[in-house]
Amino acid sequence: MTTSLATLKNLATQLRIDSVRSTSEAGSGHPTTCLSAAEIMSTLFYAEMCYDPRNPQNPDNDRFVLSKGHAAPILYAAWAEAGLFPREELLKLRRIDSDLEGHPTPRLPFVDVATGSLGQGICAAIGTSLNARRIGSEYRTYVLLGDGEMAEGSVWEAADMGVYHKLDNLCAVIDVNALGQSQHTQFGHNMDEIAARWNAFEWHTIVVDGHDVQALLNAYAEARATKGKPTMVLARTIKGKGLAAIEGKDGWHGKALKKGEEADKAIAELEKQMVAGAGKPEIAGPRSKGRPEASADYGKMAVPPYKLGDQVATREAWGVALAAVGAADPRVVALDADVKNSTFSDKFEKVAPGRFFENFIAEQVMVGASIGLAARGAIPFPSTFACFLTRATDFIRMGAISFANVKFTGSHAGISIGEDGPSQMALEDLSMMRSVHGCAVLYPSDAVSTHRLVIEMAKHKGMAYMRTSRPKTPVIYGPDEAFPIGGSKVVRQGRNDKAAIVGAGVTLFEALKAYDLLKGEGIEVRVIDAYSLEPIDARTMIEAGRATGGVIITVEDHYPAGGIGDAVSQAVAPAGYTVRRLAVTEIPRSGQPDELLERYGISAHHIVEAVKQAVTQTPSRV
Amino acid sequence: MTTSLATLKNLATQLRIDSVRSTSEAGSGHPTTCLSAAEIMSTLFYAEMCYDPRNPQNPDNDRFVLSKGHAAPILYAAWAEAGLFPREELLKLRRIDSDLEGHPTPRLPFVDVATGSLGQGICAAIGTSLNARRIGSEYRTYVLLGDGEMAEGSVWEAADMGVYHKLDNLCAVIDVNALGQSQHTQFGHNMDEIAARWNAFEWHTIVVDGHDVQALLNAYAEARATKGKPTMVLARTIKGKGLAAIEGKDGWHGKALKKGEEADKAIAELEKQMVAGAGKPEIAGPRSKGRPEASADYGKMAVPPYKLGDQVATREAWGVALAAVGAADPRVVALDADVKNSTFSDKFEKVAPGRFFENFIAEQVMVGASIGLAARGAIPFPSTFACFLTRATDFIRMGAISFANVKFTGSHAGISIGEDGPSQMALEDLSMMRSVHGCAVLYPSDAVSTHRLVIEMAKHKGMAYMRTSRPKTPVIYGPDEAFPIGGSKVVRQGRNDKAAIVGAGVTLFEALKAYDLLKGEGIEVRVIDAYSLEPIDARTMIEAGRATGGVIITVEDHYPAGGIGDAVSQAVAPAGYTVRRLAVTEIPRSGQPDELLERYGISAHHIVEAVKQAVTQTPSRV
Repeated sequence: MTTSLATLKNLATQLRIDSVRSTSEAGSGHPTTCLSAAEIMSTLFYAEMCYDPRNPQNPDNDRFVLSKGHAAPILYAAWAEAGLFPREELLKLRRIDSDLEGHPTPRLPFVDVATGSLGQGICAAIGTSLNARRIGSEYRTYVLLGDGEMAEGSVWEAADMGVYHKLDNLCAVIDVNALGQSQHTQFGHNMDEIAARWNAFEWHTIVVDGHDVQALLNAYAEARATKGKPTMVLARTIKGKGLAAIEGKDGWHGKALKKGEEADKAIAELEKQMVAGAGKPEIAGPRSKGRPEASADYGKMAVPPYKLGDQVATREAWGVALAAVGAADPRVVALDADVKNSTFSDKFEKVAPGRFFENFIAEQVMVGASIGLAARGAIPFPSTFACFLTRATDFIRMGAISFANVKFTGSHAGISIGEDGPSQMALEDLSMMRSVHGCAVLYPSDAVSTHRLVIEMAKHKGMAYMRTSRPKTPVIYGPDEAFPIGGSKVVRQGRNDKAAIVGAGVTLFEALKAYDLLKGEGIEVRVIDAYSLEPIDARTMIEAGRATGGVIITVEDHYPAGGIGDAVSQAVAPAGYTVRRLAVTEIPRSGQPDELLERYGISAHHIVEAVKQAVTQTPSRV
Repeated sequence: MTTSLATLKNLATQLRIDSVRSTSEAGSGHPTTCLSAAEIMSTLFYAEMCYDPRNPQNPDNDRFVLSKGHAAPILYAAWAEAGLFPREELLKLRRIDSDLEGHPTPRLPFVDVATGSLGQGICAAIGTSLNARRIGSEYRTYVLLGDGEMAEGSVWEAADMGVYHKLDNLCAVIDVNALGQSQHTQFGHNMDEIAARWNAFEWHTIVVDGHDVQALLNAYAEARATKGKPTMVLARTIKGKGLAAIEGKDGWHGKALKKGEEADKAIAELEKQMVAGAGKPEIAGPRSKGRPEASADYGKMAVPPYKLGDQVATREAWGVALAAVGAADPRVVALDADVKNSTFSDKFEKVAPGRFFENFIAEQVMVGASIGLAARGAIPFPSTFACFLTRATDFIRMGAISFANVKFTGSHAGISIGEDGPSQMALEDLSMMRSVHGCAVLYPSDAVSTHRLVIEMAKHKGMAYMRTSRPKTPVIYGPDEAFPIGGSKVVRQGRNDKAAIVGAGVTLFEALKAYDLLKGEGIEVRVIDAYSLEPIDARTMIEAGRATGGVIITVEDHYPAGGIGDAVSQAVAPAGYTVRRLAVTEIPRSGQPDELLERYGISAHHIVEAVKQAVTQTPSRV
């Protein structure tokens, strides 16, 4: 450590001044939550962390995650002070023409993951810590939480994973300022109660005065010396520290000091706290040089190992493909939540155990860690039952704001899982993932298309979701068939198609059965495999509308809202076509898969009925 | 306690036999997780719990929540043994013609909440425990968890709330059988490690041998004697207990013994474990009689306290209405996640502090407890920022399977919140809630409609969601105007409408501005307030299509998927109409609300452009 204590104290004061000034200029923001964290930030940024302040994306830089994202102004001030950009930029805080947003997003080069939904940053930090191992770098991850965040269960999921993976390259700090948004926190300044929790979760736990720079430096040093487990520094602080009138006062969360006299007086009060003898900070560069990111070689991948007619569940084909992609691309990692023997991610674990991360039954940290891993160059494939991905919806939402390169898979979709009943049946996952901005949504029907689409997912830049099914389905595509994201397949087509049936997954096979039944009665229909729902192949859907006089029927193992029906509907609307939908319209119950498809109206029989009804009554403007 | 130890041992064995037999008959299910819990179940059901086995819905019965829902067969066996239904029914397990589903749902009268998504039952148990206080009953709540569930963060959210609310009427039991689905749990049989966590979270914690009936009885008695905090009984057990060949063996999760020789041999092995001297169980009735549920008196509620032109944010009008509804209906309770001063649920807290439950920043337990409260007759209104409701998506999904009478509110929806940035902007909440089966989705624009709709929500049987906005908007409806769920309002209409603009919330006011601008240019348009999106007023939407030659334009502060565009589109499709959509199509950024509406294409200006484009080019079949 070469930056002096006096310098660190003054830098803390400077960060306070910058936080007050920028929020006052913006007219909104959370200055008091910055003031409590000033010494934590100055000691981390100017004495503890090793990084190149001119290149925040250097792969060997120590990482800093601001889990308490509403303290964004002090994060921005810290980087300005480190020299990344001029301090005057801070006055553009929260303006539409600035990337210095109200809460941090990766539009800024020094932000790995978007924060602002509490309890998520520490999950991302699990991911960046795991990544250091992946690339063989000695960089450390520091994550700053607010004490209110401890109420979020995801924090305890992260706590477990930090210990399970023995992440001694991870140091968390909680800014225990005892005040939440609307009232005091549950534990206030009872440091013993809080420490007891972290000790019980087996973190190396240190309690310090969060305004004592020497104590903070000692804690970080102790963290570095601690092997085999992560460290939690519990820093007792005062919200609003430095401004006597608002220190520790309720009612000041998310409130800027008024520009003009109020802010000027506050800044003057802070300026008086500058101490003598301070110099400039000296920031050490990266601790080591990790391995360069290895490149992928998809060219050598074999064709999908299936032949026409093979009976293979898409979930199993997904596992086979994931293992193959993992072998071809060392950036690929897989994360599980104790269902690897059902999703078949255990096939990946067998070929690449060092890149497989078990999270037990903790979907939030599984997704949060994936986002952190993706931020540092990995290509994570988190997976669980599709219904349980809903446990991490907020994380997926924030992942989109992070522009995260994460590839989600949800297995056991829909009522076709059968006897386990509605709690295990995802019937809203397509809706959820289609409303994630920029996320490709894929839903293959057979093993070959699954295999090809897993490769496409891995290569795709950005988020992607694949829905897989439990039942075995026959292979209907040859091994060389291509499945670009955004495409579809016309699997049956006649000269005089009276209707187009659009399905995916298990319903494609119901549509094929319906095709045969209708053909027997002299009715020709087109059958389309909508394996890519976002983006969707609008051209093929509109062409189907044109060919059939606008009789398009979607059939899906999903509720009516947000799935195949809505996707196709939106795609064909510009051409003036509407869609008839077959979907699950009740809370389903346990039963055998075939019984359920029939009972809930998405079997071949129902498709045949819908086609017959439609061809005798084409839609018209009433 | 009048049931003898020998009887409890034999009943445990009988529950084992029934669990093996029913899963073998079904050909699927989780017998080994039932076997580990047999003594826990027999001691709870036949010695500890006080209830009327002939009337599971008696409001003063002790409650039992099976958080480890996959142990459903032993729950069903326990109720059959208690005399609620004939044991032969158990052989219908998982059949489509039986309510004995793979995981429990409230289709069964003895199930309060659907389980099967782990870590949720204990949150519901917080709710049933709070409810006992609400109705002044001494009933106790017992909840059985699996040890794998401790990985779910929601369990620790529940742990905090149990202590914060001093729920000494709550006794949880964890069946520590050390095996998860795909491998050993994180902590195996290390009871000290597990106990340390619960002690640190300040529960009264007792470790017992989970196959020792006397030890279990002692633990429950100790729990009853413990005041001011809930009790956690950590029961060390063996998965598959009773069947020597599979006891403690991996690879037996979710696997039924094969009907025939394998199952018969197992049953014979269990039958040999029957002990001599056992009699019949004696089950004690309810501990006390609580207050009868008080009835509501909505008739006396005043008209909404607003006059035309008043500037009131719908979030604030929601808070005012919630407080009024709370005064009129003693069943109404409100739950917050540390944002009550932003959502305005603090207005309810002021008038009914005893029915207001703070959850700090823990959305999962807030929703889970709401589902538990609703199961026992309360009408819960959980609320937070709409974007943070996504933290509890899986709980809301399970709430729908529970047919829960819960009224969700999400505030600060959309980009119109302004400077806080994308992490705080719900742009997928309408999609999320529209895909919740049976949930009414409401989105008022002004204070009067908000007030009326809060009353409608409270009276509505089933789930409902209201989206409120941050900015102040003018009151446009008179205080006597009615707003039935499923309705809409035509707020502007001409003789020769060229287009219909459908908006809600802030976009309704953009539509009204567009109306004025277009009128100035001689173009008449219809403006519709779609305050109810699910169900939607299809008749009015189709009528608008008919009046305008099919020019319907939706405009929403939401992503394109799953919101107003999809809702209207689906409603008008049967009449052959399609919809043009204005929605947010990028990840937004911080800025001022008006700047953002303009930048992301949902301002009056964009509506005017869309109308002009549409009227010169009506959709046609291409």
